[in-house]
Amino acid sequence: MSEHGNLRIDGDRLWSMLMESGKIGPGKAGGLRRLALSASDRDVRNLFARWCEEAGLTVSVDALGNMFGRRAGTDDSLPPVIIGSHLDSQIAGGKFDGPLGVLGALEVIRTLNDAGIRTKRPIEVVNWSNEEGARFQPPMSASAVFAGLKPLDWGLGRTDADGLTFGGELERIGYAGTAPVGGRPVDAYFELHIEQGPDLEAKGVQVGVVAGSYAVRGFDLEVHGETAHTGPTPMPIRKNALVGAAMLIVDATQIALDHGPDAKSTAAKITVLPNLAGILPDYAKVTIDFRAPKRETLDAMLAAFEQAKARAAEKANVTIEVADSWSFGDEPFDPDCIALVRDTAAGLGYSHMDMASQAGHDAYNMSRMAPTAMIFSPCEKGISHHESENCTLDQIVPATNVLLQVTLKRANR
Amino acid sequence: MSEHGNLRIDGDRLWSMLMESGKIGPGKAGGLRRLALSASDRDVRNLFARWCEEAGLTVSVDALGNMFGRRAGTDDSLPPVIIGSHLDSQIAGGKFDGPLGVLGALEVIRTLNDAGIRTKRPIEVVNWSNEEGARFQPPMSASAVFAGLKPLDWGLGRTDADGLTFGGELERIGYAGTAPVGGRPVDAYFELHIEQGPDLEAKGVQVGVVAGSYAVRGFDLEVHGETAHTGPTPMPIRKNALVGAAMLIVDATQIALDHGPDAKSTAAKITVLPNLAGILPDYAKVTIDFRAPKRETLDAMLAAFEQAKARAAEKANVTIEVADSWSFGDEPFDPDCIALVRDTAAGLGYSHMDMASQAGHDAYNMSRMAPTAMIFSPCEKGISHHESENCTLDQIVPATNVLLQVTLKRANR
Repeated sequence: MSEHGNLRIDGDRLWSMLMESGKIGPGKAGGLRRLALSASDRDVRNLFARWCEEAGLTVSVDALGNMFGRRAGTDDSLPPVIIGSHLDSQIAGGKFDGPLGVLGALEVIRTLNDAGIRTKRPIEVVNWSNEEGARFQPPMSASAVFAGLKPLDWGLGRTDADGLTFGGELERIGYAGTAPVGGRPVDAYFELHIEQGPDLEAKGVQVGVVAGSYAVRGFDLEVHGETAHTGPTPMPIRKNALVGAAMLIVDATQIALDHGPDAKSTAAKITVLPNLAGILPDYAKVTIDFRAPKRETLDAMLAAFEQAKARAAEKANVTIEVADSWSFGDEPFDPDCIALVRDTAAGLGYSHMDMASQAGHDAYNMSRMAPTAMIFSPCEKGISHHESENCTLDQIVPATNVLLQVTLKRANR
Repeated sequence: MSEHGNLRIDGDRLWSMLMESGKIGPGKAGGLRRLALSASDRDVRNLFARWCEEAGLTVSVDALGNMFGRRAGTDDSLPPVIIGSHLDSQIAGGKFDGPLGVLGALEVIRTLNDAGIRTKRPIEVVNWSNEEGARFQPPMSASAVFAGLKPLDWGLGRTDADGLTFGGELERIGYAGTAPVGGRPVDAYFELHIEQGPDLEAKGVQVGVVAGSYAVRGFDLEVHGETAHTGPTPMPIRKNALVGAAMLIVDATQIALDHGPDAKSTAAKITVLPNLAGILPDYAKVTIDFRAPKRETLDAMLAAFEQAKARAAEKANVTIEVADSWSFGDEPFDPDCIALVRDTAAGLGYSHMDMASQAGHDAYNMSRMAPTAMIFSPCEKGISHHESENCTLDQIVPATNVLLQVTLKRANR
């Protein structure tokens, strides 16, 4: 252990911040509904900024609303260690998915403050805009621009279901900042997050070392058919776009089941036009993604899905086009950062295990521009993106202590 | 042939009414978008009322907006022969589905007027409200109340997607009439309609004698699952309502294909909640119907669908409930009325064939309260519920002449 190896965060203080945050944008049944750039997102941003200032951080906001609370280093010209996550939620999300990473990072700063510790490198606590993508698709759009993977105009131009733009809504809530988005060196990025899966809790392990990730490939598929009367039109000449989309969904599900216990496929969103009981629909758009812990498994699933698309197109008499596609998760995290997390957890005496992340995180974008790793905390039954998402204080303290020590070591490197 | 066996309608006059009607509520590409109780429905009602009055008919409107243009009989105490159809359209419909039956009936009256013929029984030309069900579900709601199959409150309480009620919208467009809905004897009901299928045109037959019909059974199925994160949630514990709905759609399609060339199944409408790419949906509602020319075939399909529902519920780990169901089409039309249509077509020298109707029509409701039959006209490629729906003048004249002669004979019976 290093010089400050005995330093620990204040769990009660962290918990009280999480509960305070959880009051803003209450969803159903104790959950959270704090969509990106909503009034409640604005309110929690204001609270976060106040807490940052109270902790002596200098707050800056970039042109996509990403917020950075900076603690100067003794050599402030060095690139910062950035730690954080996001404060926005799903439409019916919980209090921990996102906030634990941001407020855990703030708790790290408060702990360093209380101990009177200064670090060589600056440390920045980040709150990324629009991680969830519940209002503006795709998710993680603002960190993608920060990491240089997408242009600023693309980020500002994202629209919600009402046609409102990200840029316009950012101005409306007063968080269209002046700082440039990215374009500056970052020493390392660490993100603390709840696991969003049941493994840590089930195995009684305190800290997840995110050593790898699921390779993810997603598609927006447009199915084009032809409208006709639902009654008399003979089956062989029907071109029912919904039937084509349903075939894709069923086959994608089967493909995941065929590829072993950890492979996954999801269809959660569909749009059908005209979507009337009396008319065969000529259009369906369905979002389908595939995830697997190994790239080879993902590739095999994608090959099987290509065949499924051809079958569905022929059988439903429709055409199927890929309107959009994305991939993430096969960017490896930095071996040194992963080792630092693993060794730190071990040094603190926490049970820990290497694991693969299965969800999207801003860390994937950051890993494209800076050494990056993630720390997972157990959560109740692995539930997230649901109002019953929950953690106990005991579950979150170990991983936050790992974040503290990792940040300290990296910032003093 | 009877006394007036040489009487023929004026095809050009009928065509000009159809084209005039087709200008009201233009849809895309020359089609029609004249949803029930919309401003364009009001406009075409006004036009129809004016034409009725010009033809000497007495117009009455009942409490569901059904419009009747009555031509007195020489014994006006006798129950009327009612002829007509509907002037509302699908969201992207055509000029003939509905209007041919109403304006063809009006042309029958004009022809009788020109020839100075009075009939023993009164004749009424009807425009039924909301045949299509494109805005207010279910279809044929107003004739269902007229026929005593549903209560008036039910008809007035139908709501559209914006929550507006049928009763409120009827008042808004000024067609909440004062006449009671139904509750009076009807001598017979004849409805002229385009076939909405390709058979007459393909076989070069001029008149379809609707001798039977497809038995139809429809369901609104609600699939209940559980929301969860689309990424990490393991496949075996997912309860994805959209996957359950997709399985129902795929299986229903296969069931129709398994039951021979004339069996049909349709899924054209789906609602998914929350319908976001990041969350497994916990709710899906899908409308699925089955149609077959024989009741036994339909029963076999329904039995297979029961099994499919059980399979889908188990495999997708969801519950499936029937929220609503309906059936129509197995009400037989009146043998005398069918024979009258068939014999009249033969007497006029038209090629004709007995056929089964495959779509819903107000005639099914009317057949529950009065002797009823339908006359089909060929239409281009069998297309309907689509802006490319089309007929030629040559296609519609024979069936309209059959309507003329049938009405004349029945009203003089």
